Parts: sequence; C-alpha cells; structure tokens
Amino acid sequence: MKLNDLQSKAPAWTLARRAERMNPSVIREILKVTERPGIISFAGGLPSPKTFPVQAFHEACEKVLRDDGHGALQYAASEGYGPLREQVAALLPWNVDPAQVLITTGSQQALDLIAKVLIDAGSRILVETPTYLGALQAFAPMEPEVVGVKGDAHGVDLADLGAKAPGARFFYVLPNFQNPTGRMMSEAGRAGLATAAAQLNLPLVEDNPYGDLWFDAPPPAPLTARNPEGSIYMGSFSKVLAPGLRLGYVVAPAAIAPKLLQAKQAADLHTPGFNQRVVSEVLKDGFLDRHVPTIRALYREQRDAMLRALDREMAGLDVQWNKPDGGMFLWARLPEGVRALDLLPKAVDRGVAFVPGAAFYAEVPDERTLRLSFVTATPEQIDTGIAALAAAIREAL
Amino acid sequence: MKLNDLQSKAPAWTLARRAERMNPSVIREILKVTERPGIISFAGGLPSPKTFPVQAFHEACEKVLRDDGHGALQYAASEGYGPLREQVAALLPWNVDPAQVLITTGSQQALDLIAKVLIDAGSRILVETPTYLGALQAFAPMEPEVVGVKGDAHGVDLADLGAKAPGARFFYVLPNFQNPTGRMMSEAGRAGLATAAAQLNLPLVEDNPYGDLWFDAPPPAPLTARNPEGSIYMGSFSKVLAPGLRLGYVVAPAAIAPKLLQAKQAADLHTPGFNQRVVSEVLKDGFLDRHVPTIRALYREQRDAMLRALDREMAGLDVQWNKPDGGMFLWARLPEGVRALDLLPKAVDRGVAFVPGAAFYAEVPDERTLRLSFVTATPEQIDTGIAALAAAIREAL
Repeated sequence: MKLNDLQSKAPAWTLARRAERMNPSVIREILKVTERPGIISFAGGLPSPKTFPVQAFHEACEKVLRDDGHGALQYAASEGYGPLREQVAALLPWNVDPAQVLITTGSQQALDLIAKVLIDAGSRILVETPTYLGALQAFAPMEPEVVGVKGDAHGVDLADLGAKAPGARFFYVLPNFQNPTGRMMSEAGRAGLATAAAQLNLPLVEDNPYGDLWFDAPPPAPLTARNPEGSIYMGSFSKVLAPGLRLGYVVAPAAIAPKLLQAKQAADLHTPGFNQRVVSEVLKDGFLDRHVPTIRALYREQRDAMLRALDREMAGLDVQWNKPDGGMFLWARLPEGVRALDLLPKAVDRGVAFVPGAAFYAEVPDERTLRLSFVTATPEQIDTGIAALAAAIREAL
Repeated sequence: MKLNDLQSKAPAWTLARRAERMNPSVIREILKVTERPGIISFAGGLPSPKTFPVQAFHEACEKVLRDDGHGALQYAASEGYGPLREQVAALLPWNVDPAQVLITTGSQQALDLIAKVLIDAGSRILVETPTYLGALQAFAPMEPEVVGVKGDAHGVDLADLGAKAPGARFFYVLPNFQNPTGRMMSEAGRAGLATAAAQLNLPLVEDNPYGDLWFDAPPPAPLTARNPEGSIYMGSFSKVLAPGLRLGYVVAPAAIAPKLLQAKQAADLHTPGFNQRVVSEVLKDGFLDRHVPTIRALYREQRDAMLRALDREMAGLDVQWNKPDGGMFLWARLPEGVRALDLLPKAVDRGVAFVPGAAFYAEVPDERTLRLSFVTATPEQIDTGIAALAAAIREAL
C-alpha cells in the first residue's frame, strides 16, 4: 500500500457515547458574534481588564524567575505549590488544613475532577434553577441525570430539595452572586439549606468564584464553613486577580481529597508551577486586601450605571430585573411573549449582545430570561447598549 | 440543629465506580522517597533543569506583559492562542492546518480529552507492552478494557496487533524514545504498522514528547504523517523548553477535533493564555533550532555516562539493558529470580532509586524490568548510583 492510499483512508473512528452530549458552548458561539467591532457586549463573563494588576504580575514573574527559575519551570507536585496551599487555607473563613487544598487549573477543572470522582452514568445530581452553564458542561461527560431544584432570591426551596434529594450524589450550589442570576443566598437561606442537607445526608458542592466581589457588605459564611465534612468548596483567583493564569482550588473532606488528587494527576499532572509561584508572590503582604476593594468599587459603579440605564430605558416595558449586591451579572425577564433567543439577533442588529437565560437551565428553561454582565462595558457603553436593547424589545413586542 | 451538630455530621458520600480505579501513582510515591537528601535518583522523568532557558522566559514574560498584559491575563479561546497554533503547525513535518491544533495543559491533558471522547466503559483500547503509565492513568477513569500488544525494539508484533484489533477504539503508541523503554520504532516498523492499522481500520493515537531529543539522527517520520485522517498526534513543550508551564498540543482529524475542543472547554476552559503567549514569544526567530541541540548534547553525554557505568559495574551480573538513541530513559532487566519491586528498598538503602518496570504494563508485567532515567543525575552521581545498584543486585542474588 502506498502513502497516498493511506492518506485517503479514514478509519472507523467510534466516538464515546458521552461525546454526543458535548456541544459547543452557546455562550462561546455568542461571544464570537460579539467580537464584531462596534458590538456592545453584556454577554461575556469577562472580568474588566482594568482590574488586572499587571505591574504586580510583572514584578512577581521577575522575582520567581530570579529566585528559583529552574524550580519554577520544573515538574511539580500534583497537590499544588506548598506556600500557595497555605495562603489559600489562610484566606478561607473556617479552619482549613493546607493538606486539604488542591490547586486546580481554574475552578472549572475542579468541576471536572468532582464529576469524575462522584458521578456514575445515570447518577442523580442536583443543581440550582438556573445554574452555572460551565458546571453543566463539566458534569455532562460523566452522564448524570441532572435535576434542577427550585429556588428564589433568598435561597433554595427546601420542600423541593427534600423531594429530589433521595439518591442524589450531591447538590451543586453557587450561593454568592451566582452566575447567571447575580443573586446571593441569605443567612436564613444558608442556615436552612445546611440543616436540610445534613438531615437529608446530602453532600454539597459549593462554588464561590464571586464571593469577594460584594458591594455593600460581605456575604454570610459559606455553606462549607457550617459542615466541612459534608461539603466540597471551590474558589478561584480569576475574579480577584486575573483569569489568564487559570488558578483555582478545591477544598475537600478527607473522604474525597485523595481521589480528587488522583483524578488531578491523571488530568494534567499538575497546574503550572510557574503560575502558582507567581500568584503566591503577588498574594504576599496582604495584596488582596488593598486590591479587591478597587474591584468592588469599580463593579459597583458599573452595576449602578446599568440599573440607572434600565430604569430609564425600560420604562413602560414589562421588563423585570434584579439588583445584585455583588459579582458581575444581572438577571432580567422579558415581557410575555418575547423569547430571549429570538430577541438576540434583533439586539445584535442594533449593536448589543447578551446571553439568553435558557442556556443555564438543567431542565425546562424560562425562555424569557436573560443574563446581562455589567463589568465589561463602560458606563457610556452601558447607556447606549441598554437603550438599544430597549429598542429591540419594543420591536419584538 | 446547632452548628456543632452539623460539623460532626459526615454525609453519605458515594464515590463513582471509576474512582475505585484511581490509585496514587506508584512513581509519585517512589519520587517522595527519592526526595530524601542524599538519594541518587534514576526514578524521575524530570528533564534536567540545566536545559531550561530561564533567561529567554524572563525576557518573554517581560515582553508579553509590556505589549499586552491585559490581553494575556484575560480569559481566552479554548482552542489556544492563534500565533502559537500556527507555530505548532509549522513545526510539524506534514501538512497541518493550524485550525486542527488544540493547545492543551501539557500533553497529559490531551490523553484525558482523548479518553473522554473515544472511550466508553468496557471499550477495548490497545497499548504497547510496556507503555506510558500516565496514559494508563488518563484512560482508566473512562473504564476501558486495556489490552497490551506485543512488540520489540523495532516495532509492534503485527500478528498480535491483528488478533487484538477487532473492536478496538484505538491503538496508543509512543514511537520515539518511548517512556519507559527508551526504544525507537524503526522505519520498517512504522511502515508496517501504518499499513496494518489502515487495513485493520484501526485509529492510532501517537504520543511524541521525546522525538526531538535524538542523539545521532532524527527518527523516521511520525505515524500520523503517513495517515493524518487515521491518527491523533500529541506533542509537548515540556522536554524541549520546560515542563513547569504545562504546554502541550493535540492534532486531530476533522472527525474528532470539534469533540476534543468541547471536552477541553469543559475541562479547564482554556490553557493559561499567559503561558501560551510566553512560549510563543520564546519560540520566535528559530529559538528551538539553537536550543534543542544543546539538550541533545547534554543528554547524549549523560546516556554515555550511564552506559559506561553499567558496562563497568554490572560485569559478571546477568543484567541486560538497551542503548537508547534519544530521550531520557534506559530499560534494564534483572537476573532471573530478582524482582525489581523487591530490589527497590535495598537500592534505596544504598542511596539509589529507580522505577520498577511493572508499573508500565497494562496486563501481566515482566517483574524483572526497571526504568532508569539518565538525565537528572550528574555523570558523577550516575557512576556512584550504578555502583550502588550493582551492589544491591549482588545482595539480592
């Protein structure tokens, strides 16, 4: 057989069953559209690049390479860089042993590892309604049965949780300024959920990428702080430093931590050691205590700009929205009869983009919902963009 | 229920079935022992840190942060950084469209993505005998039936391959200076395997982290170059630049690439954009053409030192070993009746460590084999270490 014959020969690739569940992220497809020049995007979940401490990274890179460049560029332990694990443990508001901290390649990877360790094909897992799309995507390859639990602005519907918990492997919750809704679970909501989960013998998987981005007052204590043995906790440096280094972490009880570590070894051996040392260096001397308040102030201004624009531009339209106390997102609901997915092309024609809320539902979506990020566009762009959105809604009515 | 009650309540964590297959890496456990001061380690797969171009990284970090620090620290495309994908395509010795190149968090992640996309529970997959342990660990969570194909120093036993291929999802091969054996598949071996795979309708998964580390002459063309539609190809910057940035890549045919991309999105969103830009910067102006020859020269000297030490110290002992033409590893076989796993503690007592070969077999191991890395220890340490190993073998006889 000649080379040419071989080259024309496509063999019998057989895809895994789970590959059928893998689909391009709706959001990423939308983001491609929004990269067109002139589009004002409320779609992305991108932190404002103004908040990235470029100079601090600059100095940290230089120091890490100067002090121990060879060590920083070598293979490293799957668990993560020791000093960074200690810094993470010290940042958390309950008693965490650094040995429980596993450094991950963004907190998205923690979701992948948790899925591998806790989900069998057909396993029931519970999520909020709506929930973080990236979590649904990370869980999907392990072929779970994903069940949405009802909730409102304050917390979870405990009766619904009780009905759906039997046999569930875990309940995935994002209590602080949730992606996509921006909502924050109240103290009463947390206390009730923690008690119910313990009574139901239901493990919690708590995701907290946005908790530090509060505007008026810090959120109540994490669910994990209330029952560390019954919870896995995930955090990230993506929103308080920068996402481009891909640094997150997961804190798991002793029953789970060794399996997550083994899954981590198999997934990418370890998170880049250079990045871990750079972030560890940046974190020294209380950097976050000085830096994060500047992000809060900026995002609060941006949220206020969007709320003002919504008040002004949506007057007379039957559009509803919430007032997030932190984070990056605001959640809105369109007038009866207007589907967000149908509105999107009309809005893009007028130069503004958003993410239809349907993407964030595990089961039946509320097709009138949409997610608006208030952190990427400037206040002036927010004014223009919200006016364009209102015009598109009027057209759709 | 009080907080204290909750804290003492460990819920019913149920592990996924695949978690039972996850075990601590034998090698990583051994490496912990070898971190004891004074131990000469032939165990690790660590590139020599002398080869890391720290100054080039230094300059590249500075340039990337100065030219577009905010872009480098922002979320980025799951596919990878465009210019780096083009550079990878240009490095490969067949016609590769940059759109087929997916940047991964080390090539270990490519194994994880391939497993997710191509392996169902119970799927038959074929590997060499022996094979890379990290691949076995990456495939294991998807619960395949892993079958070892016989082979020798020149290539694969095609009769055995023919018998085992029916129904197999793919054959995983590492043709260049394989981990663990250091062996290189000959041109005849490659031609025969490429033809057989095409006739058998058997997809190949080709892993090539060591191909650039040849000592006398470059290896024959990759298997993938002979049938790109029938192969997935993996490469890495870990051995030609440095592993601590975790940068690898996978090139897949159009039938598979979109699914790998979707698995990548779910796994960690994207490989750190900062690292990708830094490596892209380092690669400019033919850096590898100047740098890689220095690694080859160093590793060749190290291999020669180990071969000389083996000749001298193993005289009169019935120990066999090969003479690798590149890479980082040498494969040895102990006298009859001596198991490498039993020898290890005796060797460690005498101050030297290696990896027992049994870890690298998918099925029945040859327990007399062991892997010796010749790149981490200095020539003087190699002399001392091989003498200590010979003494341990004499004691074990």
